[in-house]
Amino acid sequence: MTIPAPLNPRERLLMGPGPSTVPRRILSAMGASTLGHLDPQYIEYMDETCQMIREVYQTENALTFPVSGTGMAGMEAVVVNLVEPGDEVIVCINGVFGGRMKDNLERAGATVHTVEVPWGETFSDDAIAEAVEQYPKSKMLGIVHAETSTGALQELRGISQIVHQAGMLFAVDTVTSLGGHEVKVDDWQIDAVYSGTQKCLSCPPGLSPVSFSPRAIERMEARKTKVQSWYLDVSMLKNYYMGSGGRAYHHTAPINMVYALRESLRIVLEEGLENRFSRHQEMHQLLRAGLESLGLQYIPKESLYTLNCVSVPHEVDEAKIRSKLLQDYDIEIGGGLGVFAGKAWRIGLMGHSATRRNVGTLLTALKDCLG
Amino acid sequence: MTIPAPLNPRERLLMGPGPSTVPRRILSAMGASTLGHLDPQYIEYMDETCQMIREVYQTENALTFPVSGTGMAGMEAVVVNLVEPGDEVIVCINGVFGGRMKDNLERAGATVHTVEVPWGETFSDDAIAEAVEQYPKSKMLGIVHAETSTGALQELRGISQIVHQAGMLFAVDTVTSLGGHEVKVDDWQIDAVYSGTQKCLSCPPGLSPVSFSPRAIERMEARKTKVQSWYLDVSMLKNYYMGSGGRAYHHTAPINMVYALRESLRIVLEEGLENRFSRHQEMHQLLRAGLESLGLQYIPKESLYTLNCVSVPHEVDEAKIRSKLLQDYDIEIGGGLGVFAGKAWRIGLMGHSATRRNVGTLLTALKDCLG
Repeated sequence: MTIPAPLNPRERLLMGPGPSTVPRRILSAMGASTLGHLDPQYIEYMDETCQMIREVYQTENALTFPVSGTGMAGMEAVVVNLVEPGDEVIVCINGVFGGRMKDNLERAGATVHTVEVPWGETFSDDAIAEAVEQYPKSKMLGIVHAETSTGALQELRGISQIVHQAGMLFAVDTVTSLGGHEVKVDDWQIDAVYSGTQKCLSCPPGLSPVSFSPRAIERMEARKTKVQSWYLDVSMLKNYYMGSGGRAYHHTAPINMVYALRESLRIVLEEGLENRFSRHQEMHQLLRAGLESLGLQYIPKESLYTLNCVSVPHEVDEAKIRSKLLQDYDIEIGGGLGVFAGKAWRIGLMGHSATRRNVGTLLTALKDCLG
Repeated sequence: MTIPAPLNPRERLLMGPGPSTVPRRILSAMGASTLGHLDPQYIEYMDETCQMIREVYQTENALTFPVSGTGMAGMEAVVVNLVEPGDEVIVCINGVFGGRMKDNLERAGATVHTVEVPWGETFSDDAIAEAVEQYPKSKMLGIVHAETSTGALQELRGISQIVHQAGMLFAVDTVTSLGGHEVKVDDWQIDAVYSGTQKCLSCPPGLSPVSFSPRAIERMEARKTKVQSWYLDVSMLKNYYMGSGGRAYHHTAPINMVYALRESLRIVLEEGLENRFSRHQEMHQLLRAGLESLGLQYIPKESLYTLNCVSVPHEVDEAKIRSKLLQDYDIEIGGGLGVFAGKAWRIGLMGHSATRRNVGTLLTALKDCLG
């Protein structure tokens, strides 16, 4: 075959549902010399990375580390480690990712009860209380904090109480919120949580930060069956990530991806969590005002700051506009997913992408394209 | 917390069982601007990467792509897609990785029959013929081409014929051979194969190139049960990697890792496969002569070029020597694994690490350390 030409990607402004634009500082860190996965210097970098993940999740959970795969590997890690065949579980579905959690749980042999509200809406405490009463034998309730497919932000505090009073574990998807919205794992008593690196952490995709509470660890230790995934089996992974007196080799960690994540977390902590959340809120308000002045309406009642999902006017060919934005302006935004396919745009304001300059750039370009 | 200092990894010479030293050219490519995973430019890069994986595997298999995880995720992908609960399979064990394949298969619900020879040895055609006769209902036979834990190279041609005559699929682990030893997927009629990026391709760890034959696809299409892993389910992944008329989103691909793999494959093809295999053979012969002149003996009869596993003399504290090599010389070599723990060194000659200069550097340093 003819060997392809050297890589020369365009410098896109990434304002879709992820990945977000990666700052040069992170790309440089990722290109640092590769160490071995058992090198003491690498172990130190890894430990620092895990500690910074704890800071960002606002947790003291010892079992906190980056799964060696993208966000969906994190979802699967949570599911396969906490569920055994025959377990009853409840899943809340108001978009694509709740549906995926259900699919994952079924593949792990769980009996899945679903609570559903229309896409774009969120779950009230009452709805959850009712579900918990209806399926009292459930061992876990799973919910999405930030539905990437609809842009809806789910309030979690009340739900967490209801779930724990019923003796269930509380598992939360924070793929599109971590680093952009407040996620308080300890305060909110989340037992298992996962996220992705390529959203509000502005790191390239490839890792999934996860954290498990002591209650979740108890559940794992009481398992009667082996975890169905070897690659994601926390009972072995913890000997690498938390091993005292030497780290047991499990699989070769994605060294340079961990470099990138470490740098992205340094940036998050330098900015400060509160400042970061405020910035995302401000940029969302700015974008919202601009989009609404263009006549575009938000779909969810409770919109995320980080993902802005708006209806596309009937007369507009949404794919054509997105393609024009990409080709003529080097700006990426997302189309609708699932029931919103062809009907919505998803505009990301995540991490490094959430700046005043980018909001202005996007609004100007979008106005041009809409003519 | 105090924010950790900027990353500043030492520039180690990586001559252990992997990762190998990553050339700057690959690290630079990995740091190129992140594109979206549905960006037409990225899709083109990904297609080129898949085509180059085919070249290196010497296959025309359409279903050839990089799994979004390290080599062990590739092993799991092969297992969970080709095996259904209750299936009988045969696994050949002569080291750690055959054992892992067994563990993976059991977690997928298979009934596993094992053929074993002592660590460091390899399987004769007769041994395989006997196993196939003993367990005729088996649907697949799995074997390791290059046992990273022992340094043994397994001949595959005769075995493949025996396995196919018995109507079984033939699955092969090429983690430590791909890019260093000949791997002819089509000629040798391998039905499912996986590897890692961080060995003889000299790319950072994080992806696992896999390939499935049309026979393997038939088996997958005839499945009665869902694949137990959502993340690794090829029936969905193929719509992203091979989809005609648009690529269906499954999970966010590890964009920058694919950049790195693409560059590493460009380097492999620039050198040419035959030249590359010869280089690994020559460097192995050079290293072998040097190690033997230091009084060190190879453990396997049929040694890999890419991984050189030698016995540590009784009077030597092997961990101390490895630590001295790392601390004083910035050279990483590996210790023994499993039954060879504390008793062997594993010296890698993989990809970018397999040069005359590095062989000389290592031998000189090792001689110093052994005093």
